[in-house]
Amino acid sequence: MATRLSDVAARAGVSVKTVSNVINDYPHITSHTRAKVQAAIDALDYKPNVSARSLRKGRSDFIALAIPEMASPYFAELGAAISRAAKKRGITVLIDQTEGEAAAEKFILDGMRGQLIDGIIFSPITTAPARIGAADTAKPLLLLGERHAGGNLDHVAVDSVQASFDATTHLISLGRRRIAAIGVGGGAGTGSVRRRGYRKALKAAGIEHDPALELAGTGYHREDGAASMRDLLALPEPPDAVFCFNDLLALGALRTLADAGLSVPGDVAVVGFDDIEDGRFHSPSLTTISPDKEWLAENAVAVLLDRISGSGEADRRDLIVPYTLKIRESTSG
Amino acid sequence: MATRLSDVAARAGVSVKTVSNVINDYPHITSHTRAKVQAAIDALDYKPNVSARSLRKGRSDFIALAIPEMASPYFAELGAAISRAAKKRGITVLIDQTEGEAAAEKFILDGMRGQLIDGIIFSPITTAPARIGAADTAKPLLLLGERHAGGNLDHVAVDSVQASFDATTHLISLGRRRIAAIGVGGGAGTGSVRRRGYRKALKAAGIEHDPALELAGTGYHREDGAASMRDLLALPEPPDAVFCFNDLLALGALRTLADAGLSVPGDVAVVGFDDIEDGRFHSPSLTTISPDKEWLAENAVAVLLDRISGSGEADRRDLIVPYTLKIRESTSG
Repeated sequence: MATRLSDVAARAGVSVKTVSNVINDYPHITSHTRAKVQAAIDALDYKPNVSARSLRKGRSDFIALAIPEMASPYFAELGAAISRAAKKRGITVLIDQTEGEAAAEKFILDGMRGQLIDGIIFSPITTAPARIGAADTAKPLLLLGERHAGGNLDHVAVDSVQASFDATTHLISLGRRRIAAIGVGGGAGTGSVRRRGYRKALKAAGIEHDPALELAGTGYHREDGAASMRDLLALPEPPDAVFCFNDLLALGALRTLADAGLSVPGDVAVVGFDDIEDGRFHSPSLTTISPDKEWLAENAVAVLLDRISGSGEADRRDLIVPYTLKIRESTSG
Repeated sequence: MATRLSDVAARAGVSVKTVSNVINDYPHITSHTRAKVQAAIDALDYKPNVSARSLRKGRSDFIALAIPEMASPYFAELGAAISRAAKKRGITVLIDQTEGEAAAEKFILDGMRGQLIDGIIFSPITTAPARIGAADTAKPLLLLGERHAGGNLDHVAVDSVQASFDATTHLISLGRRRIAAIGVGGGAGTGSVRRRGYRKALKAAGIEHDPALELAGTGYHREDGAASMRDLLALPEPPDAVFCFNDLLALGALRTLADAGLSVPGDVAVVGFDDIEDGRFHSPSLTTISPDKEWLAENAVAVLLDRISGSGEADRRDLIVPYTLKIRESTSG
């Protein structure tokens, strides 16, 4: 039988109202009373009914993280970091996989119906930026990723143009001139934004960009990178370097290069984007753009919690995640 | 301004009670009325308040999946599969990362407080089996993984003893005799259960097990596998094969072997466990035990939903996940 509030009150020798005040963290309670009630709660293993309690205090201390794909290591690592950052603040993160489906993304923008969640961190892929910006979200919502929503939603992202410029410039600095790009068709604006940085770097070095070296692929997975790399090797004049718009594409490309008996970076230098753990342990280890995921997680959670409590700045926030270029064996082995 | 039930009723020309009946899917409504109300709901973009609605119908159509680590590819792939399996049935999965912390696992066993969730799929690591079996969970709870809870909780797991026997027997069939095991100290009973299968296979082949070849490591990550492999290579008589108790350990071990200039499988053959995507694309690709994750996801969701609706068998279910041994380059390259 579940312990009731009145059982706790009886054991602590206080009123039910006092127990309720302690549970709801009201400020005007003496530490003596608080300790007495807490001891009774512990002794009886009393579990407050949080549905009811949340309705009173207006918070559940749960937030949701909506990502396109759990099985993508970048999102999995990011989800783990956001979960840890929230836990430090007493908040539980529940993660929802949208698979980039329009209906699932709409469900997020609509505030996940009545689910007891205080706010949402959302990485959209499918929904048009205009719709996101115009969304009249029922709950505080923070956007991750390339899509600038305009509107008034908080937003946290890497400067992908600059990062892609740096990745490409690194390959140019190694003396490479036929530098391919894999992933130019990527979702959520990723493909076009990163291509802008890639082309900008080529232009700055006086290298004309060659459309034959820009591959869209069908997705951002290892198999897409492997297939795109096969296409590149079939060209009359294959590339001497490849900038892949995420690490999974790069790991797929490396597999194709191994199958073809080509040396990395001797024949083809490879750079990725994301710095997932897989790339650090791969042979050769993968040179990549490393966004500071801990920084991203800490700041996304802090901004969202400010928004939930109403203590943040009134204006929307637009935070740029710091990154570094990690040079490893795939360009310097 | 949010649309109210009365707005929908006015537009559809029916009573508020009728709108409520349609929203709650009561059976005695004519299809004509249902269509009229649905048209009004669509026209006004009415969003039912699901908190209130859930309280009435007693369901939220959300379930939780509690896993130790999101960033572990096995759990990420499993989470993705469970999310897909649930979505086919109109259920949203919210994922909670416990990091194996006792407090976080207790929180799950206690039913996640009042969160609007119909049931929980739980992969425990820290909590003792006796406590899990004795848990008086507030909500239907299904266990994943090695720990047989006894008690009356449904349970879905691979037969790890048999799978480990098969993996080790495969290495023996290649003529290997000094077969090491990495991960014997793994959490949730995984280490001891898989070691049982490993030793059983050695014994069946008349090979005495050598404690120096059984490494516990400090975790189940790539870095642990890399470190354990370094320890094995430092032995007076290093192994000619390694069975790693998950793929991450195996991928770490492969990195150490590459650094040491040893050939795989020529010098050392390597087998993993889990069949994560990383191992399929690695050079060499990884031989591994491949549990049928889709089967696991489909059945875990189906059993839990039966339990939630009360339509399942009264007795606890104990399902064994099918698996295959995928032979790839790390043992046959």
